[in-house]
Amino acid sequence: MSWNSSSIVAVGTVAFDSIKTPFGERERIVGGAGTYIGWSATRLGVDTGLVSVIGEDFAKAELDAMTAAGMHLDGIDCPKGGKSFYWAGSYHDDMNGRDTLATELNVLADFKPVIPAAWRKAKWLMLGNIDPALQISVLDQMEARPELVVLDTMNFWMDIALEPLKAVIARVDVLTINDEEARQLSGEYSLVKAARAILAMGPCYLIIKKGEHGALLFHEKDGELVTFFCPALPLEEVVDPTGAGDTFAGGFIGHVARCGSTDFETLKEAIVVGSALASFTCESFGTEGIRAVSEEMMEGRMRAFRNMMSWQTSAVGAAV
Amino acid sequence: MSWNSSSIVAVGTVAFDSIKTPFGERERIVGGAGTYIGWSATRLGVDTGLVSVIGEDFAKAELDAMTAAGMHLDGIDCPKGGKSFYWAGSYHDDMNGRDTLATELNVLADFKPVIPAAWRKAKWLMLGNIDPALQISVLDQMEARPELVVLDTMNFWMDIALEPLKAVIARVDVLTINDEEARQLSGEYSLVKAARAILAMGPCYLIIKKGEHGALLFHEKDGELVTFFCPALPLEEVVDPTGAGDTFAGGFIGHVARCGSTDFETLKEAIVVGSALASFTCESFGTEGIRAVSEEMMEGRMRAFRNMMSWQTSAVGAAV
Repeated sequence: MSWNSSSIVAVGTVAFDSIKTPFGERERIVGGAGTYIGWSATRLGVDTGLVSVIGEDFAKAELDAMTAAGMHLDGIDCPKGGKSFYWAGSYHDDMNGRDTLATELNVLADFKPVIPAAWRKAKWLMLGNIDPALQISVLDQMEARPELVVLDTMNFWMDIALEPLKAVIARVDVLTINDEEARQLSGEYSLVKAARAILAMGPCYLIIKKGEHGALLFHEKDGELVTFFCPALPLEEVVDPTGAGDTFAGGFIGHVARCGSTDFETLKEAIVVGSALASFTCESFGTEGIRAVSEEMMEGRMRAFRNMMSWQTSAVGAAV
Repeated sequence: MSWNSSSIVAVGTVAFDSIKTPFGERERIVGGAGTYIGWSATRLGVDTGLVSVIGEDFAKAELDAMTAAGMHLDGIDCPKGGKSFYWAGSYHDDMNGRDTLATELNVLADFKPVIPAAWRKAKWLMLGNIDPALQISVLDQMEARPELVVLDTMNFWMDIALEPLKAVIARVDVLTINDEEARQLSGEYSLVKAARAILAMGPCYLIIKKGEHGALLFHEKDGELVTFFCPALPLEEVVDPTGAGDTFAGGFIGHVARCGSTDFETLKEAIVVGSALASFTCESFGTEGIRAVSEEMMEGRMRAFRNMMSWQTSAVGAAV
């Protein structure tokens, strides 16, 4: 694979995670938003340039695997003597909550993203969850406005960096946050009211991620709120949900990039593609699930979503 | 409207509710599972025979309105000097929880359901949430096995009457419960595993209601679990969710009855019809919302569900 007009630029962490869930634990496995976005988008055959920072402790074999998968690493800084960003967390028994046990910023503390010159006209830009000031600096480095900019963020930045966050939100096309974050950002409990308030902040599209309860896509057209809903696939077991949101985001922008279109129909399908890829991430620890996805597996899962969501209108139903 | 082969028999409470939500409060308005089921199914043009009990305090005007709407009240007992079942509750600010402030069983304490002779060959039977022993006695009074029996229940009966509840579950076609109840009944946290365990208890179909997060329909075919998911319509405001589950159940069996079919495609559409009707109930206090539903309003809402759930496969997506 090589850099081309459907390639994505993604900024996000490339890091180590230690994860404990009711199904077991893993010590210092590869994680980070950028990593999951990259593994996800490249599963769709879309080359992905990562803008990130790692320490000298990062395994070369891991970087080689990422390159072989279609990720371009020229945008990853590796300062001398640095240690990689590290996160440790433990999920509650019901998997709906988690406790952070450790956060070591390490090289992330001084990260200044630099987009390689060859990537600055990319059409598709994914701003993974990271300091909004860094997301802005990435946007500013683009030589042309990308056709689609997707922004992921979280409540942490709403708490400590609301103004820079609002500044970047005003400049993107799609914002992805969870339901609690949508409520916090808008001050509205109703997701419909929250969506209207957030779309008024700038983005054309809002994706509200509800984890096991699916994802909502909101868009305003002629003053009317248009809504699309994609469920999460009910799984036998959610082994480790770490990275599911980033996998979703990578699949979403990856599908848009491979289609080369930003119309609403494409975005709707992209939500399903992202949800399908995220379901693989949840089934195994870390990146194990998403790395193993084949075309055939993805076809089967897209069929599962189609079956789960489609219904026919009977003659009687139509007459209601 | 008159009693015919598409008419439903429904057992469930007809009662008074006092309800407090962040949007206001109502004192002693008409409620009860049977009432919501009846108002819902009759919105679809399906006559509904109610098997219930009321006190002499129940307003005649209310009963007349129910009759005019297509409900048949010959199955409602009204013991001399009795007072109607009464429930009072207060919803939390986020509407996701509620506290029961009062429960006065009154006439419900000695309720012995009797199905009028003319209804005992009905093809469609809705066992609303009530003591499982009473649900069994209703089933036993049917002269022929109905084509579809739908059972609604709740955690309360799992706590105090698990064995009779299991006995009735084994005899029905469709069980409707919420996600926490599915977990309690099966002992499984994963809804997929819970669904398999519950389907093994007897029902052909399991509906898991997740409130604002939609509803799942599970069915086993050739040993494979088949799943359909219907979202809840995101509303500007959920003013009062009381009765939404019963409205859903009434709409579900009402649609099956008017179609005269129990195939899986019909049941899927019935889930959407039930969800659409339930959305009206949530928008106003008590039965106000569901009573006001016109054909045109229902058509509009079914279109909203269709738009929210449908997506096209692009050439690129198909090639995944």
